[in-house]
Amino acid sequence: MDKAAVREILDKVRAEGREALTAPEGKLVCDAYGIPTPREGLATTADEAAALAEEIGGPVACKIVSPEILHKTEAGGVVVGVQGAQAVREAFGKIVENAKAYHGSPTITGVQVQEMLGGGQEVIVGATTDPTFGKVVAFGLGGVLVEVLKDVTFRLAPVDAAEARSMLDGIEAAEVLHGVRGGPGVDLDALAAVLQKVSTLVTDFPEIREFDLNPVFATADGASAADVRILVETEEVTEPVRPSREEILRVMDRLMNPRSVAVIGASDTEGKIGNSVMKNLINGGYAGAIHPINPKAREILGRTAYPSIGEVPGPVDVAVFAVPAKFVPAALVECGEKGVPAAVLIPSGFAETGNQELQDEIVEIGHRYGIRMLGPNIYGYYYTPKNLCATFCTPYDVRGGVALTSQSGGIGMAILGFSRTTKMGVSAIVGLGNKSDVDEDDLLTFFEQDDNTECVAMHLEDLKDGRAFVTAARRITKKKPVVVLKAGRTAMGARAAGSHTGALAGNDKVYDDILRQSGVVRAPGLNEMLEYARSLPLMPTPQGENVVIITGAGGSGVLLSDACVDNGLSLMDIPPDLDEAFRRFIPPFGAAGNPIDITGGEPPSTYEATIRLGLEDPRISALVLGYWHTIVTPPMVFAELTVRVVEEFRAKGIDKPVVASLAGDTEVEKASEYLFDHRVIAYPYTTERPVAVLGAKYQWARAAGLL
Amino acid sequence: MDKAAVREILDKVRAEGREALTAPEGKLVCDAYGIPTPREGLATTADEAAALAEEIGGPVACKIVSPEILHKTEAGGVVVGVQGAQAVREAFGKIVENAKAYHGSPTITGVQVQEMLGGGQEVIVGATTDPTFGKVVAFGLGGVLVEVLKDVTFRLAPVDAAEARSMLDGIEAAEVLHGVRGGPGVDLDALAAVLQKVSTLVTDFPEIREFDLNPVFATADGASAADVRILVETEEVTEPVRPSREEILRVMDRLMNPRSVAVIGASDTEGKIGNSVMKNLINGGYAGAIHPINPKAREILGRTAYPSIGEVPGPVDVAVFAVPAKFVPAALVECGEKGVPAAVLIPSGFAETGNQELQDEIVEIGHRYGIRMLGPNIYGYYYTPKNLCATFCTPYDVRGGVALTSQSGGIGMAILGFSRTTKMGVSAIVGLGNKSDVDEDDLLTFFEQDDNTECVAMHLEDLKDGRAFVTAARRITKKKPVVVLKAGRTAMGARAAGSHTGALAGNDKVYDDILRQSGVVRAPGLNEMLEYARSLPLMPTPQGENVVIITGAGGSGVLLSDACVDNGLSLMDIPPDLDEAFRRFIPPFGAAGNPIDITGGEPPSTYEATIRLGLEDPRISALVLGYWHTIVTPPMVFAELTVRVVEEFRAKGIDKPVVASLAGDTEVEKASEYLFDHRVIAYPYTTERPVAVLGAKYQWARAAGLL
Repeated sequence: MDKAAVREILDKVRAEGREALTAPEGKLVCDAYGIPTPREGLATTADEAAALAEEIGGPVACKIVSPEILHKTEAGGVVVGVQGAQAVREAFGKIVENAKAYHGSPTITGVQVQEMLGGGQEVIVGATTDPTFGKVVAFGLGGVLVEVLKDVTFRLAPVDAAEARSMLDGIEAAEVLHGVRGGPGVDLDALAAVLQKVSTLVTDFPEIREFDLNPVFATADGASAADVRILVETEEVTEPVRPSREEILRVMDRLMNPRSVAVIGASDTEGKIGNSVMKNLINGGYAGAIHPINPKAREILGRTAYPSIGEVPGPVDVAVFAVPAKFVPAALVECGEKGVPAAVLIPSGFAETGNQELQDEIVEIGHRYGIRMLGPNIYGYYYTPKNLCATFCTPYDVRGGVALTSQSGGIGMAILGFSRTTKMGVSAIVGLGNKSDVDEDDLLTFFEQDDNTECVAMHLEDLKDGRAFVTAARRITKKKPVVVLKAGRTAMGARAAGSHTGALAGNDKVYDDILRQSGVVRAPGLNEMLEYARSLPLMPTPQGENVVIITGAGGSGVLLSDACVDNGLSLMDIPPDLDEAFRRFIPPFGAAGNPIDITGGEPPSTYEATIRLGLEDPRISALVLGYWHTIVTPPMVFAELTVRVVEEFRAKGIDKPVVASLAGDTEVEKASEYLFDHRVIAYPYTTERPVAVLGAKYQWARAAGLL
Repeated sequence: MDKAAVREILDKVRAEGREALTAPEGKLVCDAYGIPTPREGLATTADEAAALAEEIGGPVACKIVSPEILHKTEAGGVVVGVQGAQAVREAFGKIVENAKAYHGSPTITGVQVQEMLGGGQEVIVGATTDPTFGKVVAFGLGGVLVEVLKDVTFRLAPVDAAEARSMLDGIEAAEVLHGVRGGPGVDLDALAAVLQKVSTLVTDFPEIREFDLNPVFATADGASAADVRILVETEEVTEPVRPSREEILRVMDRLMNPRSVAVIGASDTEGKIGNSVMKNLINGGYAGAIHPINPKAREILGRTAYPSIGEVPGPVDVAVFAVPAKFVPAALVECGEKGVPAAVLIPSGFAETGNQELQDEIVEIGHRYGIRMLGPNIYGYYYTPKNLCATFCTPYDVRGGVALTSQSGGIGMAILGFSRTTKMGVSAIVGLGNKSDVDEDDLLTFFEQDDNTECVAMHLEDLKDGRAFVTAARRITKKKPVVVLKAGRTAMGARAAGSHTGALAGNDKVYDDILRQSGVVRAPGLNEMLEYARSLPLMPTPQGENVVIITGAGGSGVLLSDACVDNGLSLMDIPPDLDEAFRRFIPPFGAAGNPIDITGGEPPSTYEATIRLGLEDPRISALVLGYWHTIVTPPMVFAELTVRVVEEFRAKGIDKPVVASLAGDTEVEKASEYLFDHRVIAYPYTTERPVAVLGAKYQWARAAGLL
């Protein structure tokens, strides 16, 4: 890679105040990074053009080169399929003539004479600068597929070879690249190499704002970019400030494991937020020091009150704010003077009500004093390992491995209600609100190394710094699943963009692809986020892709199969010996294969024998059970036998994911609860949900490289 | 339409024992139905070919015509873009030579010389014979879109002009037909006319098994089929026997409203099916006569028992079978002799266990005596308006407007459990099992005219007679919503097919398109089927497309908007006067527009005023409410005020669909129930489900032509 050559071209373009590179400049940039382009040359006279065409051989394309003319075709500046010296000369003349007619007096650098490509598959390779994620690289098929069906895929740049290859399979029409109608496939390695080079180029030169290779002709022997379009940033490019992992952890640890908490605006008056927060800290059982701050009180709820945080004896780790917005800046300065590392800003009345100025003011104070701030405009946060309930809601006491965060207060309340009603074991619930400072990547960095957290679920509407999020997510998802509900996926609308790739990036697909690239599981809706969060930590990680359905109801078996396909699970192709082994337990008219239909009238022993075999055989990775309520095997009998067998195998060190769908009268509700309590994920009246949860576990395990 | 011409060609083809028409024969068929094709002629010598080409003008395509050669390209029998007399002569010679080399001694009818089409959009128009639905017509774009992305749409043939037009918008890439990259759109009327003509043709001639126009070139001025492929059925084509609507209703009425029921195999022994059925009939409160049939008893559960049904005094409307499979045929003959119109066959041990013979035997008996049969292999059926519980499950007593049916017993049990736990108002629950006789279209025909039923939900794995289903569904869905859970949508696999259209039809898309065409709402899963069934009859029919979201939580608003887009709902574009009206009620930093974000800290009066305005303004058709649990407006306060306002408007004759998503602590569960009880569809902890239910209502209303 010849960085110096690119640097020289870009400096020249910027020095001339241009936003776009000319085609020959674009070709030089491609050459410098080894991106293949057609043979070509620049002709300044008709005779030069004819000589170039002769040298290239075969038909050529002739294109105007003029800094003033960006839309060459529109200006009549392109003639394709030109063959023979005379025809090339004529094309040269016509192009120059058209250019003058189009623009008046353009600076004509010359006419580009280019080898005609074709015969392969037209694809688009591009890169753009996403407002959330920065440099992203894009890939799609040319023509209708990308323009009408938006069949395009994105990755954070730079991509490595494996990621580049994954992009080729990341589009709906991927099959086209492997050859259709008996035609040959394209050279996937060559195409992936182009993607990787483009991603390196825009990473090396952040001032390249948008980059289009459109079309690239991909053939069985290689890939060559027929047209290059490069736009540069005319303004200075700055990267966001990112604290180091150690800096983040130092303060996050103080926030989540504080030795002392001060409540600014603590109150004795029932119904006030400062009263609720005090009560929740005390009733929640927080064991550290609690300091009410209130200039008008000497004692609040039995604790000594101080007129200002400065007067609290000893250090304060967390200051929870329960005062109106207008009082926040002054109190925050006092926190800074006191050396408080973390502030929890419950009050609303900042950016969300249009008061951006007030928010900017507190951000500035935070920076000045090195205070990390949660909020403003939040319900507060819970961290159950410390019995810490710094919110105006009620305490939550079912400890467990799930950490949940929400950008919206309403969603936070839904998290709390759902958690309570399902008795979900929770490590933390955190409100992020306006995200003036602490955001998702800070929390992911903390939860990654927090032994109390096994799974993270996040509701978010946007990311302040998508790249920092991806970095943190990539680390944690290697160890723990992260579920993300990204709201606003249909409302982003198009952005003005100067390139094809830029225009295509203006939709939810960028978030979707990059979240997947970072290893997180994206939940399609709120309820799925909650159910995934509840279930994922209860399930063991599958050791392979072979899913087997065992069902007492043929009808459930069909629906469970549908759900497996919908959720990207692989129904195991049962080998003959295993098929025979299953057949020994089921009636002759039952169906082995997969689903294994044990039929409806069977006694508990048939369920037990087949489940046992499913757990025993090492080729089977996960079980999906379909239960049918009968008098012969009532719901609780099924639930108890399943738990007994599963626990027996767990004791032997064999722990496979087992999920169950229970079809029956209302008794199946209690049976499902019993199963859930024993880490068998079970739901009544639905064949989709247990499979969706298993699918989420698989999605995580694959992304984490565990399969 | 020249039917006689087509008849003559088809008769000739079948007389010759051929399965495929030659290209010239295909062209004549197209001509007879006014399907445009390129100018062309048949040449038997090289000179004739040259003369034809001269007459057509421009470049031509030359194609071998030989009954033995079906794959012309493969045989080297096609040369395209031939221009000039000499070139045409050479092409003729080469084609004949290739054909001989390919086949040995083919019958060479000649060489087809055809006008070259191009420049337009390549599309595929076809028809095939679906095993479930019979003649279906297909439409898709040519090339990768249809081959790789399977972007194709189907309708039951024949289609009217409106249905044909709807097909053009029924593909993902529909935008292409309207013109892309500034190009002109195609002549949609011309293309729709081709579709309609093809559908008429295959309807008029059922022996046409498969029909491909591939490609059709669609341009701004018309549409012309460049290649025609027609395959005929070599065996006799028979239509299934379909009882008339009156015949169906006569027996279905006896089945659902019987004056007397006999239980064959009634028993005094606890745990036996014949005992459960007797108890459920009696305890369920059925007021007609109940006759136990048992040769060994004189009385069962206080009712006189008879040794055989023949000895029951007076007529019997329904015979419920609770005897082992092997005893069914003899007892069924006795029912026939007695003149019983309807038999309910609970026993299993028929086709589902591989005993097809036994099933064929009972079907024959049924036909012989004119007995309509439900089952075999079912749990029985409920019809609550008659307190009729002819099943071995327990009685169900919450009467209401929902009729549910299931093909599978397991799913039937899930229906029962879900109904009970949600207190769903039910008119009927019917098991269909093996569907040896009575099937979905019989039930739809009954439910259509049953005043006790307002909504039908059906679980099905296949349809015995898809065309009869569509006919019945089209009638009833004009009046009442029908929800269908079609299982097995991912497992149909490909079928061997002789045409492109035939191959494409081998997937779930045929079911999906034709179910939609018939006006039913397809539920994506079991839980959705149950939730739609529960909610649809409780909601009024919307009067327009304008949906408005009113939310206390901005976060819920975003998720509710996502859900609206996902479910095909139109978020109203709020006009300035209405925007101003809403703004009067909400804080200055709240957001009008849509969602209307009243913000989180608002008192009940703000919810009330905005809901009131939403109901009042005639431009708004439906409301989606997003509630956020706060101390200022607790859950039950929100629920009660919403019900009060909605009921006030209902009393004034204004009844709009109102659905709600409640985000909050566990109290929102009770509030949701209260809302549901008052016909405001409300769910806690989910933003998706209330909107999905509203979406289902809209989908039905649109299909019924009510919007």
